[in-house]
Amino acid sequence: MPRRPSPSLLRALSDLLGVKGFSTDADAMAPWLTDWRGKYHGRAAAMLSPASTEEVAAVVRLCAEADAALVPQGGNSGMVGGATPDASGDQLLLSLRRMNRVRHIDVAAGIAIAEAGVILQSFHDAVLTHGLRFPLTLGGKGSATIGGLVSTNAGGTQVLRHGTMRALVAGIEAVLPDGSIFDGLAPLKKDNRGYDLRHLFCGAEGTLGVVTAAALHLVRAATARRTAWIGVESPETALALLRRLDAAIGRTLEGFELIPHACLDAVLRHIPGTRAPLADAHPWYVLAELAGDDDTALGDALEGQLAAALDAGLVRDVALAKNDRESDDFWRLRDSISEAERADGPALQHDISVPVDLMPAFIADNPVRLGAAFPGARALSFGHLGDGNVHHHVQPPHGIDGAAWIAAHGADVSRLVYTHVVELGGSISAEHGIGQMKRDILAELDSPARLAALRGVKHGLDPAGIFNPGKLIG
Amino acid sequence: MPRRPSPSLLRALSDLLGVKGFSTDADAMAPWLTDWRGKYHGRAAAMLSPASTEEVAAVVRLCAEADAALVPQGGNSGMVGGATPDASGDQLLLSLRRMNRVRHIDVAAGIAIAEAGVILQSFHDAVLTHGLRFPLTLGGKGSATIGGLVSTNAGGTQVLRHGTMRALVAGIEAVLPDGSIFDGLAPLKKDNRGYDLRHLFCGAEGTLGVVTAAALHLVRAATARRTAWIGVESPETALALLRRLDAAIGRTLEGFELIPHACLDAVLRHIPGTRAPLADAHPWYVLAELAGDDDTALGDALEGQLAAALDAGLVRDVALAKNDRESDDFWRLRDSISEAERADGPALQHDISVPVDLMPAFIADNPVRLGAAFPGARALSFGHLGDGNVHHHVQPPHGIDGAAWIAAHGADVSRLVYTHVVELGGSISAEHGIGQMKRDILAELDSPARLAALRGVKHGLDPAGIFNPGKLIG
Repeated sequence: MPRRPSPSLLRALSDLLGVKGFSTDADAMAPWLTDWRGKYHGRAAAMLSPASTEEVAAVVRLCAEADAALVPQGGNSGMVGGATPDASGDQLLLSLRRMNRVRHIDVAAGIAIAEAGVILQSFHDAVLTHGLRFPLTLGGKGSATIGGLVSTNAGGTQVLRHGTMRALVAGIEAVLPDGSIFDGLAPLKKDNRGYDLRHLFCGAEGTLGVVTAAALHLVRAATARRTAWIGVESPETALALLRRLDAAIGRTLEGFELIPHACLDAVLRHIPGTRAPLADAHPWYVLAELAGDDDTALGDALEGQLAAALDAGLVRDVALAKNDRESDDFWRLRDSISEAERADGPALQHDISVPVDLMPAFIADNPVRLGAAFPGARALSFGHLGDGNVHHHVQPPHGIDGAAWIAAHGADVSRLVYTHVVELGGSISAEHGIGQMKRDILAELDSPARLAALRGVKHGLDPAGIFNPGKLIG
Repeated sequence: MPRRPSPSLLRALSDLLGVKGFSTDADAMAPWLTDWRGKYHGRAAAMLSPASTEEVAAVVRLCAEADAALVPQGGNSGMVGGATPDASGDQLLLSLRRMNRVRHIDVAAGIAIAEAGVILQSFHDAVLTHGLRFPLTLGGKGSATIGGLVSTNAGGTQVLRHGTMRALVAGIEAVLPDGSIFDGLAPLKKDNRGYDLRHLFCGAEGTLGVVTAAALHLVRAATARRTAWIGVESPETALALLRRLDAAIGRTLEGFELIPHACLDAVLRHIPGTRAPLADAHPWYVLAELAGDDDTALGDALEGQLAAALDAGLVRDVALAKNDRESDDFWRLRDSISEAERADGPALQHDISVPVDLMPAFIADNPVRLGAAFPGARALSFGHLGDGNVHHHVQPPHGIDGAAWIAAHGADVSRLVYTHVVELGGSISAEHGIGQMKRDILAELDSPARLAALRGVKHGLDPAGIFNPGKLIG
């Protein structure tokens, strides 16, 4: 068990890091002790902000000697409270934000090395000046950092084509719980020297040590995109359409989002300036986007494929964006769903995945199970169908106090959803991680074999349990 | 420390597995106690051949209770003695070869589930009947098994386009060292429930438990291929050509092998029926292959790209295979290098990787270092340039007793090669793993931080050390 930092440890850390790197000031620390959504609140004995890998290593060595707990933090934009310390005030917040250099961009190899504190948007900008693109983006790109994105194996809207963070990490540098530096930045395409530490640190949520830098794959900047808003009968037909597009034009297919009519309807009701791309209502919609170099070829490919799908009766209607502004308008409908839903009242949100094939059945069956157990409850599924990952939101019955219903039934509703997911071999966290939010439900629903293996890894690498205790499996 | 199996443990295992699954017969065990190249010889207290995951789990539970060591084995075609027991006779050989069912082929999803003992060639055949291809192949495909390929993160000749085994594994089932079954077969594209056990078991060489089945990604069977034999000035120009082809036609580029003239020369001297594809000799050659659906388009693409490269002075001459037979002839030159080299006398073989960018410098510099330390020693590099992975062979000086020279200097020569690789951030095992062959040199040359992390993982998952002791880091 980690111990409260002693005055002499705090003095040593202060001496090491100086004024810029060490703070116990409540006001300075406050923004970093609550997660961005305001759901989790913590306290910290100090906030440590080392500026180099060597400083991080020195911090960890001091804390390892003193058995003091460290909570790594990047942009504080996580979704599961993984970077928020506990309420004891005994943990040390380890901010990586001062490590914000892009160390190297190798244009020929398509690889850049960025430190953990580099903000995603800054990284996008830095590589774009070389005609390159880092093909991962998400809503929090103005605050999310490279270290946090690696440590949560972040996803986003381009996973279909480019994979999650894991697929884009060519190498990592990390400080291990004993304070030693693991330099795995060399981008080796083949390396069979035993267990893959790069993949182990991707998604480890700062529980095995702290990522200090990453070598990241880049692609050529896309200069053209084509977007379509497509009316379909059901998730089954959407999946059939996806398979078709994937086989024919998969290498340019970057987005394939599934949206039920109820979500579009909420957006149109609540978000000013929005309008439906198609004249008629359809049960479901697909937002599909191609990206590449050749605008005309992309347009021809999308139009040709969708015309054939119309002829085959696979889709009901299609609106093609005529220009960039219309593309943006289509995406705005998708990106406004959460905001529209909030305007409709509280909801329980679940970030889940199942094998892609089983997704239509889950979307059809889960509302039936919910309705039987919680009469009137409404379920909406939308999001990344091609990744087998939808945001599955459950709204209270109409005409009652939603907040009270959630307070009374929320935990049981979520348990029903997650149990169904586990039955299908799915994941109770597709994108966001476990953090503190899903720690207990993971321990309850995951298989004992898997949990034991996770605990074995944790214990093997961090036997004293100083890294991010209370998170994931801590 | 594992203990010698007691008579009562052996009896319990015999009762569990029956006649087909349990043997202590020396003749029956003999083929499996020596690796296929005859370099490593071991003994075993018994050979266990369970036929189902449940039987594997029961075996492991009995052995875990008794602290008995298990050595998992698939096709016994590994390169580093990873599946050969030690000489004590106290270890139990755990053969997965009876688990040889392809459980399921999902054509729409492009995923098949194969048990650990399925032989690669059989798996190729099974999916091909559905018009699908498993895009990993290698010389040992007639004996190598799916479990062994996962556990060694096998590579082969199609890594450039499709990645190593790791990239093709969508899910795994494994029995953990406590005998529990980890069912991670559901092919989830997104799953952020902590440490990725799938990636951990890929390349773990049977030291963390035993893989019993894998869900594997398939692609559409390629119906067309186009092959070229290209004369180039140097590894630098070969790399420049690779970058060019990759940017222009990368999605069809499946092979890019680098071959020095000395290797071609040895093949032509020793292998009957071979002939040089080009009239003139060139310092280096590239064997490039495109694969896809559209034969004409592939041919046009390859011809157009290489004509432009000729005009740009990047390549010296090109021979295009006119048909499948000529493609096979080109590949035969490449695949005969090892045989021709053996006919030339003994050599020290090194399976190494460095970042792709540094490969030309390594190929140029390493012979200079070798020549300075071991006058007359000759180094040849050939293989998968696009993967940053070459087979780097060192031959004794001309006109001396080669075997005696290797006996006297072999270990020091290899240490010089591996030290150079490590200096460049490379790997002393690109494809073959560590096994028993490279265990000591790994312990000597790898960074203390990385070694400590590997040992931590091993200890965390297999604290009693019953899985494949003496291998990798054991």
